[in-house]
Amino acid sequence: MFTPHERQLAEELVQAIHFFSAQGWSPATSTNYSVRSDKPDEVIISRSGVDKSRFDLTDLIKINFAGEISPSFAGATIKSSAETEIHTHLYQLFPEINCVMHTHSVLGTVLSLQLAPEKQIRFEGYELLKGLEDNLTHELVELLPIVPNSQEIPQILRSMDRHLQAPLKIHGFLIEGHGLYTWGKNIAAAKRHVETFEFLFQCTHAMGRN
Amino acid sequence: MFTPHERQLAEELVQAIHFFSAQGWSPATSTNYSVRSDKPDEVIISRSGVDKSRFDLTDLIKINFAGEISPSFAGATIKSSAETEIHTHLYQLFPEINCVMHTHSVLGTVLSLQLAPEKQIRFEGYELLKGLEDNLTHELVELLPIVPNSQEIPQILRSMDRHLQAPLKIHGFLIEGHGLYTWGKNIAAAKRHVETFEFLFQCTHAMGRN
Amino acid sequence: MFTPHERQLAEELVQAIHFFSAQGWSPATSTNYSVRSDKPDEVIISRSGVDKSRFDLTDLIKINFAGEISPSFAGATIKSSAETEIHTHLYQLFPEINCVMHTHSVLGTVLSLQLAPEKQIRFEGYELLKGLEDNLTHELVELLPIVPNSQEIPQILRSMDRHLQAPLKIHGFLIEGHGLYTWGKNIAAAKRHVETFEFLFQCTHAMGRN
Amino acid sequence: MFTPHERQLAEELVQAIHFFSAQGWSPATSTNYSVRSDKPDEVIISRSGVDKSRFDLTDLIKINFAGEISPSFAGATIKSSAETEIHTHLYQLFPEINCVMHTHSVLGTVLSLQLAPEKQIRFEGYELLKGLEDNLTHELVELLPIVPNSQEIPQILRSMDRHLQAPLKIHGFLIEGHGLYTWGKNIAAAKRHVETFEFLFQCTHAMGRN
Repeated sequence: MFTPHERQLAEELVQAIHFFSAQGWSPATSTNYSVRSDKPDEVIISRSGVDKSRFDLTDLIKINFAGEISPSFAGATIKSSAETEIHTHLYQLFPEINCVMHTHSVLGTVLSLQLAPEKQIRFEGYELLKGLEDNLTHELVELLPIVPNSQEIPQILRSMDRHLQAPLKIHGFLIEGHGLYTWGKNIAAAKRHVETFEFLFQCTHAMGRN
Repeated sequence: MFTPHERQLAEELVQAIHFFSAQGWSPATSTNYSVRSDKPDEVIISRSGVDKSRFDLTDLIKINFAGEISPSFAGATIKSSAETEIHTHLYQLFPEINCVMHTHSVLGTVLSLQLAPEKQIRFEGYELLKGLEDNLTHELVELLPIVPNSQEIPQILRSMDRHLQAPLKIHGFLIEGHGLYTWGKNIAAAKRHVETFEFLFQCTHAMGRN
Repeated sequence: MFTPHERQLAEELVQAIHFFSAQGWSPATSTNYSVRSDKPDEVIISRSGVDKSRFDLTDLIKINFAGEISPSFAGATIKSSAETEIHTHLYQLFPEINCVMHTHSVLGTVLSLQLAPEKQIRFEGYELLKGLEDNLTHELVELLPIVPNSQEIPQILRSMDRHLQAPLKIHGFLIEGHGLYTWGKNIAAAKRHVETFEFLFQCTHAMGRN
Repeated sequence: MFTPHERQLAEELVQAIHFFSAQGWSPATSTNYSVRSDKPDEVIISRSGVDKSRFDLTDLIKINFAGEISPSFAGATIKSSAETEIHTHLYQLFPEINCVMHTHSVLGTVLSLQLAPEKQIRFEGYELLKGLEDNLTHELVELLPIVPNSQEIPQILRSMDRHLQAPLKIHGFLIEGHGLYTWGKNIAAAKRHVETFEFLFQCTHAMGRN
């Protein structure tokens, strides 16, 4: 079902998912993850409703941009999350995106609610801003948009689209009360973005105390 | 002593207990866990007083709804917790409950004391509310009752019963200063409920700061 | 050097030390641990200055109540901590104590400094108070004395002695800015006491926020 | 490429890096680490941009004080961090320094920003101050300088130099918004210093709440 190269990608993705699970960033079967397959219009994506501490290779399937399961996975009884459309939307808009990750941490959730009125989080003065692709200095301002949550994915897509003009200036966005979406040119870059944003959430929360 | 299917359940339960222990949700030999056995009126339950970081299959016994040890465990020198009656009470009232879990986290304890005057915690606006069975949207209000603690279990049962009318509208309850009880149609669902409530406790605590 | 039974005790002690290290309660080679050997006036105790994440059986020695290394360990180049005298003092005073543990957590340190003027921490209303030996209900008040720190151990002993009249009413004490001493009838009981006090520290700290 | 003794050092360094990664003190490929090789003017140092949870022996190279890769590593396609110069600067100034570690924790970052106006953190009254080499009592004041961040390493060196007169009185310094540099006579001492400072950061943060 996977080419040897895709299998390598799948294994790297599973390893990243276990890392996030151990951090507490994917509680209660929440969150989803994908990587572009060998074909540019096909995506390897996590199935819905899996305990991420027990996630393995058999919890990944291949789909096309319409969300249809790849013929090579015919007969699969598993399905991807309702949020699949957010992943495929990003891959379609930006050929440079090869991995999309959605985590759901306590502080991502809390900040998305606390700062919802400002519609974004503003990060400034942190060396770790250089953890985000193409940021070459800490002397910049990084904006992370916060979009309203909805059970209608197309509505989330419409809220996202305001922030998704090419060339892409953001590295991710928060959905209110729902968590983080970020991406990268490959799995390592997307994982680094997750770690960077979660670090910045923790700093922002701790700074707020004083 | 266990049927092959029960042994599978027992192993899954032990795995969940180790997960909770690693999160710090079962400190100092506290907490107890059970799953309905192959017989609808029999329960596999954790023995009392075990260090959950070292819990294993031999720390599980089978009992009936009167708390009596199953004949197949005759001669067992281990006994279940005084709180066994809370478990069997739930199984007797609700045939759809097949697993009961009681965890004892810092924030569950703290919130149960801080919000005791309100007699409940109100959760609203969190996507992760969908981690609780049959919740299909974040646009709802989830109420988690807080009942007084007592060393007399029947007194706790009386406090619980007010919240336990069929059809069941709650997914768990807190005992003041004592921790969480939650349940599910199977082990995976009950574990997901524990993770969901602990996540919501962490969010509630972190939100309170600002 | 160890009898078979002592070796068993030593292995159980090492396992507890690794657990504490993983919790962050023994940072930077701090903390020390002991268990009474097969001889009532002999103690198996951790050597000084070891990274607790790498602690193993070779880091334990046997000493008598004068702190002298047991003949069976003659030639040992390792030595026990300066705080050994606190351990042997407790064993000499109370025959029912068979294990002494000293951990050094962030919140134990912080509370010992914040509550130093009150000379004790008062715990009340927590079910987990039952984690402390002979506490049969949550409806009691547990007092944990805080004594001043000193580089002169005899001075710490004098401060402790006020709280160490038989029959023993306390389950441990804090040294200001320095951490927790607790004990038990065996290793499991002492470990349960460490977990209980650390849980209560975390609750006390979290409660303080509101 | 490594002598047997250097290989031992390299393995100990990798083990320390994994420990820091598990603590969350080296997020998103940040941080760097080095140890003096068998030759006093040569350094074994971590390569740039590696996920520290996956760091291994092949991620270490040997360089001289000019930052040039050792002939025995000729053809290496990996390079050390831009911050290499901070490491070699410390080795050149102080022959007693044999290991340099740079971690990047949330609280190190937060305190470096919150206390930037005071240009230092003042630690006092903590027993764990004895975790820092040559500190024999808790009755002293430890100062940790905070220097401004810059993408120009020579500018950071100039800020550091004010604090680096021999004999060395400090055990490390913070770079604003960027994290901790500390060192030791060997890997164990440098690791103990990292653990000590991170513990003191956590205490300082928790104390600030009341």
